[in-house]
Amino acid sequence: MKIDFRSDTVTKPTPGMLDAMMSAKVGDDVFGEDPTVNALEEMLAKMFNMEAALFCPSGTMSNQIAIKCFTQPMDEVICDQTAHVYRYEGGGIAYNSMASVRLLNGERGILTPEIIEPEINADNIHYPNSSLVVLENTVNKGGGKCYQLSQIEPIAKLCAAKGIKLHLDGARIFNALVATGDKAFDYGKQFDGISVCLSKGLGAPVGSVFLSNKATIKKATKIRKVLGGGMRQAGFLASAGIYALDNHVDRLADDHKNAKALANELEKADFVSYVMPVETNIVLFDVKPDLDVDQVVNAFEEKGVLCNSTSNKTIRFVTHLDVNEEMIDQTIQVIKNLKL
Amino acid sequence: MKIDFRSDTVTKPTPGMLDAMMSAKVGDDVFGEDPTVNALEEMLAKMFNMEAALFCPSGTMSNQIAIKCFTQPMDEVICDQTAHVYRYEGGGIAYNSMASVRLLNGERGILTPEIIEPEINADNIHYPNSSLVVLENTVNKGGGKCYQLSQIEPIAKLCAAKGIKLHLDGARIFNALVATGDKAFDYGKQFDGISVCLSKGLGAPVGSVFLSNKATIKKATKIRKVLGGGMRQAGFLASAGIYALDNHVDRLADDHKNAKALANELEKADFVSYVMPVETNIVLFDVKPDLDVDQVVNAFEEKGVLCNSTSNKTIRFVTHLDVNEEMIDQTIQVIKNLKL
Amino acid sequence: MKIDFRSDTVTKPTPGMLDAMMSAKVGDDVFGEDPTVNALEEMLAKMFNMEAALFCPSGTMSNQIAIKCFTQPMDEVICDQTAHVYRYEGGGIAYNSMASVRLLNGERGILTPEIIEPEINADNIHYPNSSLVVLENTVNKGGGKCYQLSQIEPIAKLCAAKGIKLHLDGARIFNALVATGDKAFDYGKQFDGISVCLSKGLGAPVGSVFLSNKATIKKATKIRKVLGGGMRQAGFLASAGIYALDNHVDRLADDHKNAKALANELEKADFVSYVMPVETNIVLFDVKPDLDVDQVVNAFEEKGVLCNSTSNKTIRFVTHLDVNEEMIDQTIQVIKNLKL
Amino acid sequence: MKIDFRSDTVTKPTPGMLDAMMSAKVGDDVFGEDPTVNALEEMLAKMFNMEAALFCPSGTMSNQIAIKCFTQPMDEVICDQTAHVYRYEGGGIAYNSMASVRLLNGERGILTPEIIEPEINADNIHYPNSSLVVLENTVNKGGGKCYQLSQIEPIAKLCAAKGIKLHLDGARIFNALVATGDKAFDYGKQFDGISVCLSKGLGAPVGSVFLSNKATIKKATKIRKVLGGGMRQAGFLASAGIYALDNHVDRLADDHKNAKALANELEKADFVSYVMPVETNIVLFDVKPDLDVDQVVNAFEEKGVLCNSTSNKTIRFVTHLDVNEEMIDQTIQVIKNLKL
Repeated sequence: MKIDFRSDTVTKPTPGMLDAMMSAKVGDDVFGEDPTVNALEEMLAKMFNMEAALFCPSGTMSNQIAIKCFTQPMDEVICDQTAHVYRYEGGGIAYNSMASVRLLNGERGILTPEIIEPEINADNIHYPNSSLVVLENTVNKGGGKCYQLSQIEPIAKLCAAKGIKLHLDGARIFNALVATGDKAFDYGKQFDGISVCLSKGLGAPVGSVFLSNKATIKKATKIRKVLGGGMRQAGFLASAGIYALDNHVDRLADDHKNAKALANELEKADFVSYVMPVETNIVLFDVKPDLDVDQVVNAFEEKGVLCNSTSNKTIRFVTHLDVNEEMIDQTIQVIKNLKL
Repeated sequence: MKIDFRSDTVTKPTPGMLDAMMSAKVGDDVFGEDPTVNALEEMLAKMFNMEAALFCPSGTMSNQIAIKCFTQPMDEVICDQTAHVYRYEGGGIAYNSMASVRLLNGERGILTPEIIEPEINADNIHYPNSSLVVLENTVNKGGGKCYQLSQIEPIAKLCAAKGIKLHLDGARIFNALVATGDKAFDYGKQFDGISVCLSKGLGAPVGSVFLSNKATIKKATKIRKVLGGGMRQAGFLASAGIYALDNHVDRLADDHKNAKALANELEKADFVSYVMPVETNIVLFDVKPDLDVDQVVNAFEEKGVLCNSTSNKTIRFVTHLDVNEEMIDQTIQVIKNLKL
Repeated sequence: MKIDFRSDTVTKPTPGMLDAMMSAKVGDDVFGEDPTVNALEEMLAKMFNMEAALFCPSGTMSNQIAIKCFTQPMDEVICDQTAHVYRYEGGGIAYNSMASVRLLNGERGILTPEIIEPEINADNIHYPNSSLVVLENTVNKGGGKCYQLSQIEPIAKLCAAKGIKLHLDGARIFNALVATGDKAFDYGKQFDGISVCLSKGLGAPVGSVFLSNKATIKKATKIRKVLGGGMRQAGFLASAGIYALDNHVDRLADDHKNAKALANELEKADFVSYVMPVETNIVLFDVKPDLDVDQVVNAFEEKGVLCNSTSNKTIRFVTHLDVNEEMIDQTIQVIKNLKL
Repeated sequence: MKIDFRSDTVTKPTPGMLDAMMSAKVGDDVFGEDPTVNALEEMLAKMFNMEAALFCPSGTMSNQIAIKCFTQPMDEVICDQTAHVYRYEGGGIAYNSMASVRLLNGERGILTPEIIEPEINADNIHYPNSSLVVLENTVNKGGGKCYQLSQIEPIAKLCAAKGIKLHLDGARIFNALVATGDKAFDYGKQFDGISVCLSKGLGAPVGSVFLSNKATIKKATKIRKVLGGGMRQAGFLASAGIYALDNHVDRLADDHKNAKALANELEKADFVSYVMPVETNIVLFDVKPDLDVDQVVNAFEEKGVLCNSTSNKTIRFVTHLDVNEEMIDQTIQVIKNLKL
C-alpha cells in the first residue's frame, strides 16, 4: 500500500460518507427533482452568502461555466499566469468561452489591484474587452498560498469600479478558510461567482458547486446542459458532499500540520535546494540542480511514497484525508533515508 | 405516489443496484485509476465490438464529444430534423463543435441512403463540409421507432464511400436491440462512434458511455476534460452501469409490452385522435383537435399519472423499470375513465 | 466574349464609376479617417433611416457580423431553409456565432408570422434561445421573389413582442425596392439590422454595408476587426458604391424587364419543364426530367451563354448591368435554337 | 498638413500606383477569375518560394486564417507576449480558432529555440496541444527589431522536429529583408505559412497575402469565405500591390534612414529618457518619468507632428512612403524646440 501524495483528489469515501451516500434520497436532477442535490446547493449558497448554486461533475466544469457566464466571445480573462483555469483546464477558456487571456505575474500567484489595473484594456477595437478577473484560493501552483479576505476586498472594489466580474476558483477554498480564519459567509459579497470543490480536501468522490446570483445560475444551468454536465440521480454524489461539509472541514487543519511536518523534514534533506513556505496542504520543493527530478520521484516511489514533479526541478506533495499521522511519520523516515 | 411516465430517466436504483454501487472499488478516474470505470468501459467496448470506451456524466456529453471528435469547425452534421443531438442538446452542435446542420425528413426519424445522399455537400467554398451522419436508435421523437441493422448497413456503406463518419446516438439502443433481436456485437463495424446511455431504460442513476476506436477515445478523453466531464471516484456510478447491463437488459421487453398495453387502451379513448404504432417503450398520441393538450396532461396528473406534452397536440408516455404491471393496470383504468 | 448570366456579382465598373474611384479622397479607415467610406456609410444610413453603418468587404461579412451582433453562443437563428446566410455562407452561423438554426419552409423563401411563431423556442434548458429572425429580400433561392413591406411589418411586430431581433439580408434589396415601389426609408423601423450589397445589381466591384443603431455598429466594428475586415484606404471601393447608389438603382428595372423576356422565351422552349414566375432579376427554370442539367448548361456555354445549375434539375440566369438589350436578344435566339 | 508618423498604414497611393489600379483587369475573384489578383498571388508565391497564395482584405485576416489553418480548437499557439496576433487582433486567436496561447518573453520580441522548447506542452489531457509557433518580423512592439534568417533556421528545425507548424507574421517582412539583406526566396522553406502586408511600408491602400502550400491555401480560401473576406473585383486592390512590389521595396531603406535620423535627434532631447536602437522604420522612445506621455504627444501634434503613445511612457514614430526627407528635417526641428 503506497502513501499517495500526488493530489488530494485521490481520496476514497470513509464508511460514514458511504453510509450517507447509500441512504440518499434521489430524483431526476435535470428536472430539478433531486432533493439531495437541492439540499447541497442550498447549503453551500447559504454558507457563502450567495443566492443560488449549481452542482457540477467537476471543478473544471464549475470554473468553465463561470467563465462562460461572465464573458462573451472576444472578451479577455485576467488571471495569474499559473492559474488552474488557464494552465490545467485544457485550453477551455478559449474553447468554451472563445475568450482571450491576460496573464499576470503575482507573487506565488497572489494578485493585487496594482498588478491588475494596468492590464485592463482600454476600449479599442484592437483589444479584447477585459470582462473578468479570476482569483484562485488557495493557489495550487503557488504551493497552497492563501489570499486573506482583506487582500481580496480591494480587488473586488477595483473590479466593481471597472465593471469587471470577479470569480473565485475555490478548488481549495476550505483550506484557505481554515488557514486564515476568514469566514465563508464573508466571501459572498466579494465575488460574482465562486466554485467550490468537494472532491479535493473535503474527500467526496465527485463534484463541485458553482455559486452566484439567481440569474447567473439560471444561465449556468443551461450551459451545464449543453456541455453535458446535467446528471440524473446525482444525489448519491451530492450526499457525499453534504457529509464532507459536515464532517471534513475542520480536520483540514491536520492536513496543514502534516504538510508543515513534511516541509520541515525536506528542508534538512541534502537532495533539496529549496522548500516553499507551507501555508496549507501543499508542499513544493526544488531538487538540487545536479539531480534529475524524475529520478527523485522514482526513488520516493520505490520506498512506497507517491508524488509528482510539477516542473523539471520541482516536486509536489499534497496532504489529505487519506494520509494519516502514521503515514507522515513513515514518509519522514523515507525523506531522511532517501539515497540518490 | 404518482405513476411517472414522463421519461425513463426518472428511475431510481433497485436495492441490488445500490448494493453494487456501495461495494464498488474506486480510484481517481482522471488518472485512469478507477477499476470499476475501467471495467464498465471494457465491458461495453467488447459487447459492441469497439476498441475503446469512455464513461461520461450524460448522454448529451457522449453525443457532443462524438460530434466534436468527428467534425471540425465549418463542417456539417447530417441528421433527421427531430434528432436529439439537434433538438434537445441546447444547440450544442453549433456551440461545442461550431458545426452546421443539414436536417432531413425521415419517416418517424428513420433515414435511408436515398434521403441522405443528395444532401451531402459538394466540395465548394460556399458550403460546409459534410463530415458526419448521426442516426438515433430508437428514435425518441419518432415514438421509439427502431432501425433494423439491415437498414443501417447501406447507410454505413454510403458514409464509408463518401468519407463521412457515422455516429449512433444510442440513448435507447438496448430497447432497439431487444425489439429487433439484432446483436450489439454487430453494431460495432457499422459505426465510427456509438453512445450508450445507462440512465434511461437500464435504470442506472447517472452516465453514458462513448464507444469508438482507440485514437478517437484518446481525443474524446481530452475533450471530456475540457468540457468538465472528468470525474474522480466515478466507480460508484459505473458500478450501477455494470449492474444494469447484467440485470436490466432483458427486462426491457416488459417495458415494450407495457407500452403496447397503454397504446391499445389509448386507441379506444375518445379524447385521442391518433396513437403512433408502438415499437418499444414510448407511446406518442395526439389529443382530439378541440382539446388543449395541457388540460389533458393535467387531468392525468390529477389522477396520479405523470406524462409530458411534446407539441401542442401530442402527449408522450415512456415506460421503464419503475413502472410495474400493477401501475399499468391502474393507468389503463385512468385512461378509461378520464373526463375532459 | 461570352454573355455572363452566372451572377450579378460579375459586373465590372463602368467608365463613370472608374472615374469616381480614381478621384476618391481616402484615409485610414481603421482609424475612421477615410472620408469616402464615411460618406457612403452616412448616405446609406440616411437612406434606410438607420442610425449608423459599417462598410464591409462582402455581403457575407455584413450578414455574419449582424448575426454575431444579434446572437450569443447557444442562441438560435430562425430563417428559411433556403436562406443565403444558412446555405451559402460556409456554415458561418455555427462557426462565427456558435448559434444553432431553425429552418422554415416559406413559399419561395417568404416567411410569415404564422410560420415563424410556432418555431420560437420555449425557455427550457434543452433548447437554444431563439434570438434572431433573418429575412432575405429578394429571395435568391426563391427565384428573386420579393417581400412587400406590408408583409414584413407583421413579422417585425411578432419579433418585437417576443424580444427577438430581426435582420434583413438585403443582398438584392434594391431589386426588391424597384420591383415593389416600397421606400428604403420605411425599412429602417422594421429591422434591427440590414445588410446592403453594393457588388451585385448595383455594379460596384467590392463591398457591402451593415446598417443598425449606433451601439450595434460599435460592436460590429469590433467584430469586423477580429474577422479581419478592417481595411485601410477603402475609399476607392466606397466611392464606387456611392456612384452606384447615385446612378445604378433605377436601371435595375431594365434587369427585371430583361429577366422577364428570358423567362418568356424559356417557357416556350422544349427542353424546359417549368419556369418560376419572375419578379426581379433572377430566372430559375427546370429542365425536362430526361435531360441532364449540366448538359444543358454546357450547351448554353457552347453558344456563348454562361449560366449555373442550382440543383440537379434547375438552372439560374441572373440579369445585371453588364447584360444589355442586345445580349438579351442574342440569348433569346440561343434559347430558340438550342439543340440537346 | 500634418506629418503623420502614427503608422505606416496611413499612406495614400502615388499617382503611378493610382494609374496601375485604374487600368487593372478585373474579374470575380470568388470564382477565381480576377486576373490581377491571380497575378499578385502568383508573384508573391514565387518570390517567397511557396506553392500558393491568397489575397486577403487585411493583415489581421491573413494571420487569423493562418492560425485557423494550423490549429484545431483546444490547441495552443506559442508566440511572444507582445505579438500582434495576440495583442492587436482583438482576441482573434481565441475567437476565430478557439486556441489557447503560451506567451513568451523574447528580447524585444525575438524568440529562440531555447525560449520556445520548454514551453511546448507534454501530451496530457490537462494541457492544450502545442501546434503552432508564430514569429513576427520585424517585431512591431520590439521597435521594428529584425530576425536574421540564421536565427529563424534553428526555430524552424525545432518546430519540424516537434511536429509544430511555424507561421510568420510578415506585416513588415520587406523592412526586415531590406535591413538584413536576407532573400525572400529563402524564407519559403523555413515557414509553413507567411503573411505579407501590402498596406504598410509598401504603400498599397488595402490588402495582405497569405502564402503556404496548395492544400493549406485551399483550406484558407474556405475560411476566408466564411469570415467574409471573399471579395469580387478585387483586382483594383491587387494591382496596387503589384505596383508596390515592383516600385516600393528598395525605397524602404530611406524609411530606415529617416527613422535613424529621428532617433538620433530624440537621443539628445531633454524630454526623452530612452530611445530603443532603430533597426528599421519604427522609433520607440520613453519620455522622462515626470512627464505625461499624452502631453508629449499633444505637444507634437500642436507643432504639426502626429505620433502615438504605446504605453504610459512610450511614444512611437513610424516612417513611411508619405514622409519625405524634408518632413524629417522639419520634425527634427520640432524635436529640438519642443517645450513641455
